[in-house]
Amino acid sequence: MSQFSYQLLSQDLETGARRGVFSTPHGTVQTPAFMPVGTQGTVKGVTIDQVAATGAEMILGNTYHLALRPGHETVRRLGGLHGMTLWEGPILTDSGGFQIFSLESIREITEQQATFRSHIDGSIVQLTPEHSIEIQESLGSDVAMVLDHVVALPAPRSTVVDAMERSIRWAGRCLNAATRDDQARFAIVQGGLEAELRIQCAKELATMDFEGFAVGGLSVGEAPSEMYRITAATCPHLPADKPRYLMGVGRPIDLLESIARGIDLFDCVMPTRNGRNAMAFTDRGNVKIRNATYREDTRPLEEHCPCLACRHSLGYLRHLFVAKEMLGPILLTIHNLTYYQRVMSEARAAIENNTFAQYVREKKAGWGMVDELP
Amino acid sequence: MSQFSYQLLSQDLETGARRGVFSTPHGTVQTPAFMPVGTQGTVKGVTIDQVAATGAEMILGNTYHLALRPGHETVRRLGGLHGMTLWEGPILTDSGGFQIFSLESIREITEQQATFRSHIDGSIVQLTPEHSIEIQESLGSDVAMVLDHVVALPAPRSTVVDAMERSIRWAGRCLNAATRDDQARFAIVQGGLEAELRIQCAKELATMDFEGFAVGGLSVGEAPSEMYRITAATCPHLPADKPRYLMGVGRPIDLLESIARGIDLFDCVMPTRNGRNAMAFTDRGNVKIRNATYREDTRPLEEHCPCLACRHSLGYLRHLFVAKEMLGPILLTIHNLTYYQRVMSEARAAIENNTFAQYVREKKAGWGMVDELP
Repeated sequence: MSQFSYQLLSQDLETGARRGVFSTPHGTVQTPAFMPVGTQGTVKGVTIDQVAATGAEMILGNTYHLALRPGHETVRRLGGLHGMTLWEGPILTDSGGFQIFSLESIREITEQQATFRSHIDGSIVQLTPEHSIEIQESLGSDVAMVLDHVVALPAPRSTVVDAMERSIRWAGRCLNAATRDDQARFAIVQGGLEAELRIQCAKELATMDFEGFAVGGLSVGEAPSEMYRITAATCPHLPADKPRYLMGVGRPIDLLESIARGIDLFDCVMPTRNGRNAMAFTDRGNVKIRNATYREDTRPLEEHCPCLACRHSLGYLRHLFVAKEMLGPILLTIHNLTYYQRVMSEARAAIENNTFAQYVREKKAGWGMVDELP
Repeated sequence: MSQFSYQLLSQDLETGARRGVFSTPHGTVQTPAFMPVGTQGTVKGVTIDQVAATGAEMILGNTYHLALRPGHETVRRLGGLHGMTLWEGPILTDSGGFQIFSLESIREITEQQATFRSHIDGSIVQLTPEHSIEIQESLGSDVAMVLDHVVALPAPRSTVVDAMERSIRWAGRCLNAATRDDQARFAIVQGGLEAELRIQCAKELATMDFEGFAVGGLSVGEAPSEMYRITAATCPHLPADKPRYLMGVGRPIDLLESIARGIDLFDCVMPTRNGRNAMAFTDRGNVKIRNATYREDTRPLEEHCPCLACRHSLGYLRHLFVAKEMLGPILLTIHNLTYYQRVMSEARAAIENNTFAQYVREKKAGWGMVDELP
């Protein structure tokens, strides 16, 4: 019997948004859920206790970065990602496919493997689907992603088709290479911005023995409406009894729009990266903490937010950034991660109450956004 | 009745080391005590909860830095240092004298005031003893230090005498300028490396109405033995019923040697600065975390240390620094502050048990140091 399961608890009547629970050997994840990104074995700027205190139940690590530094064998000898980070909940690792695509290094992709240069020392690195799984098994994550072939958009249809078909073949090779019962494999749907290709890819992957399915190759520069369209086209062709993960997404509005289209899991560096760069997510929209108007503002960033940053005044938060103190990025990272978890928590409650569409409209109004829901 | 008091609880029979308690409006401090330094209104790299968790009972803020940025009036409007930082215990602020001395800016000292250039924008700043107290009253610290005239050593005797005498006159001006009953004033003994001048300065300041006394102008490049000699010469001439503070000191061994000579309070950036630079204090001496021998070391930095850093493996700590992750400096700052507090806690227990000299010998043996106690 599998150590992994997804239970669909309820669905919003108006949008079809899913409320579920994903079970893993390291505990359960209430979905929809947002996974903070711990690229190099740490969610940047915060301790593992602080990550847990934001309400996060599952985090992500990056196979490409960890394989290069400290090396996946070193991670394994240090107790795997769980032993190293002390994160007690589930961990998902990506496959390295997106980093190969996104990092500006010489890269060549053949049917056998991807070849690229290390961003650390320039050395030549080769990655096969089998090797990606082997690395992820060393890292000891609960969920391993298949190695996929991501292409820059826009691209000729033939290029998109070729990469999509290769991604399906590589997904099969990943399944065949896997040896750990305590690690789930998630497939990744590719196919660019053509709904037809996405549907074809989803249908083929759905026949294979995966514990979950991701929508990949999005959030790479296309308009949000394009991303929503592709997500909406893809999800109905994925198994209803497996979790669905939209990779690398996104802004809070992107999470809500994608939940409305059937997505359960997200990851993104935005809350942590923007936090380090003095930008806070709030119910009234984005707040630039360095703004001089906050200089002597005794109010918290957000009333009613339980995070450590919101126990301080806006004026103090601004001072920390102006004075280039580490505590500024630390506190704003905590706030932004807390904010993302709060939005997910509210979204789950709204789905249970069949008020999800209304909830999204209210959020958008607070963020100063025009309603774009269909 | 004063809101401040120092109670001498016990004294080590062999060394005379003092075990006491310093009471302030924001609570008590068990002495000997080490104060973490929060230069710009934050102990660098850690949240205020993490500072408290190290066991620290009192922290320090720097008047010079806070007056320039965000400005002491802004600090006052944001609730003072306590309201801004959320530190609930006592806070001590220095006077700006040492920063005027140590920062490489054009400076001129007359009987009336010190004149220097801001290290932030190069503007001309003038600081009088009265203004230093006014600033510290705006900051709302529990203990304000008098403005003193620090000179670089070695210096001609006449220069040292001139600065010492001016420091005494400025101490008197600070007392006269003070208006807050909830803020104590500590005098600062100057006099370079001449015991005779130090004793003269201590005796004169002891006749004045201060709640505590500091030994200043040390730890500026002289040999540790010189610092110990001056401390030993000075302390007997300070009132036994007031706390004694050795400013800007130092290594753990410096703390113990100075406690043996009658000091109660310390501050130093060393645990935080060294922590950010990958150097850990431990009972077996200093540990350079980047050392390649720790690459796959699954042991903690220190067994039995309760801090968050020591819940992780040495290999993980090394990885964080090699990968330039913020969590490395964060965790090592927490460890070093915890270590300093642990040494102070052990020192207090040893004084109570009349085993302080033996305790210092054991610590030195662990640190690989030859016994230098007289």
